[in-house]
Amino acid sequence: MSFYAAPISKLIDEFSKLPGIGQKTAQRLAFHVLNTTQENAQELAQAIIEAKEKIKYCDTCFNITDKQCCDICANTKRDSEVLCVVQDPKDVVAIEKTREFRGKYHVLHGAISPMEGIGPNEIYIKELLLRLQDDEVKEIILATNPTIEGEATAMYIAKLVKPLGIKVTRLASGIPIGGDLEYTDEVTLSKAFEGRREL
Amino acid sequence: MSFYAAPISKLIDEFSKLPGIGQKTAQRLAFHVLNTTQENAQELAQAIIEAKEKIKYCDTCFNITDKQCCDICANTKRDSEVLCVVQDPKDVVAIEKTREFRGKYHVLHGAISPMEGIGPNEIYIKELLLRLQDDEVKEIILATNPTIEGEATAMYIAKLVKPLGIKVTRLASGIPIGGDLEYTDEVTLSKAFEGRREL
Repeated sequence: MSFYAAPISKLIDEFSKLPGIGQKTAQRLAFHVLNTTQENAQELAQAIIEAKEKIKYCDTCFNITDKQCCDICANTKRDSEVLCVVQDPKDVVAIEKTREFRGKYHVLHGAISPMEGIGPNEIYIKELLLRLQDDEVKEIILATNPTIEGEATAMYIAKLVKPLGIKVTRLASGIPIGGDLEYTDEVTLSKAFEGRREL
Repeated sequence: MSFYAAPISKLIDEFSKLPGIGQKTAQRLAFHVLNTTQENAQELAQAIIEAKEKIKYCDTCFNITDKQCCDICANTKRDSEVLCVVQDPKDVVAIEKTREFRGKYHVLHGAISPMEGIGPNEIYIKELLLRLQDDEVKEIILATNPTIEGEATAMYIAKLVKPLGIKVTRLASGIPIGGDLEYTDEVTLSKAFEGRREL
């Protein structure tokens, strides 16, 4: 039984369905909504509805966008010969923030994970191969996460793409900048050795 | 500059205006909205709008409610002779959860705080006095917080109400149950001594 009037209980309930939002935080958010202006509350509600309605996947790279073709794919200044393959739209943003990469992307929306029942057909691998058929792509950078699932996905894609005569690379693994050798786990450390470069 | 499509940027922005929600959490929430069903997103947006529209203050006790008169005030089984005065609607819920108190409430919506420019007229003290005029109230329990502001508010109300011949009490302060004497601050400890009871 809730001690709040129905509309508040309902709002607390809805907030607490969000990931990482517990009962106490949901209550705090609900009271914030009650104490804010009508306009602010309306804007939040509107933003939820609009994002849900307008956001879909780009026809080409499957990144999230509100257009048929996303801004990166539509940008003629970007290099169509290099494709960076990532698991998640958030990864695109992380890479864009470095301003290092000027090629285009392909978003898989996941990684192969037999444990979770995600096979190659559950993520956008077919669509990647389809893109490579008629395309001018010369290099594929596999930027899936350095986890078991991400590695497996990279290996799987590499095996399919290499026979097409396209260069396949993988992001370097190693000790993060600012990291400490002493506290680096063994796997990362051995990867760092493996990937050592001549200066 | 944001790397997300406009409707997502906007949603992340709106979420990050909520208290205690930073950029990263706002991003996580926005992606949750994108990945949830249309129905769930709609319900969240609807709950925000409805809570904002329907919730107002009870005409009698000024607790938040979606009715003219809140459920507690309307409940004839509750004792109208005892009034518990609290700072906040959340305090009502905290007290209701104990199931100890069977009287009615009065919500002040704040405490006197000269530092923040909140005087007696900024909170619902007038309305409390008005309630006492024609009323059958025999006791007022001052349940404002045991802080400087809460104490000041309690003292202020006590001074006004006592001359009316109404019993005025204050919630006990002391060491919380499960607490540790060693780690109790001096003020609480001296309050606990002051309020000691014969067994």
